Amino acid sequence: MARKYDLECPIAGTLDIIGDRWAILILRDLFRHSARRFQDFEATLPGLTPSVLSARLKSLEGDGVVATRTYETHPPRLEYFLTPKGRELGPILLAMKSWGEKHVRAGDTQKPARAKNR
Amino acid sequence: MARKYDLECPIAGTLDIIGDRWAILILRDLFRHSARRFQDFEATLPGLTPSVLSARLKSLEGDGVVATRTYETHPPRLEYFLTPKGRELGPILLAMKSWGEKHVRAGDTQKPARAKNR
Repeated sequence: MARKYDLECPIAGTLDIIGDRWAILILRDLFRHSARRFQDFEATLPGLTPSVLSARLKSLEGDGVVATRTYETHPPRLEYFLTPKGRELGPILLAMKSWGEKHVRAGDTQKPARAKNR
Repeated sequence: MARKYDLECPIAGTLDIIGDRWAILILRDLFRHSARRFQDFEATLPGLTPSVLSARLKSLEGDGVVATRTYETHPPRLEYFLTPKGRELGPILLAMKSWGEKHVRAGDTQKPARAKNR
């Protein structure tokens, strides 16, 4: 997990919980699908490694944003879902979606391989 | 700059622009103060190194979220401010502030040095 900001600021406090790379996209999938198995995240988030996924889920669970339940007992398998605290992150994701739809086109952001001429 | 997500998703597109560590807190300062000099950010964001600050400002400027103007000519010095596109990020930050005020207390998130007992 990335270092915490250690700032007395509610925005920094929120970022301490959901600001790590991939965390918000993991939450996005939980808003879309209500419950997800580990391999479901892997299918929709190419580029996310199992170890980072595992670390993010554990961290989000530790902060009370995500919870797990068993969906199969032999062998035991978990699925992940949003807690009420996690569902209250919805306005943040909706605001990001809205801004992205208005301002970002696919391939529109700066990429190291093809940076804009500035 | 961190690797881009390369996903066809407006949330991922937004995160490609503002998702890097410190970016949202830099924007927070620009919402609070309207214009900021380089050293102003350093004063309010302890832990942010000059090289990361410089990289973030350049990236945010390249994506049209932040712009600069000269506030002193001898020697030339820049101050940073939000573009209209940048100001439209406001609802994202407000939603983060609101969630943090409700759900995060100082020192409440998991930290490696004092992880919760789980």
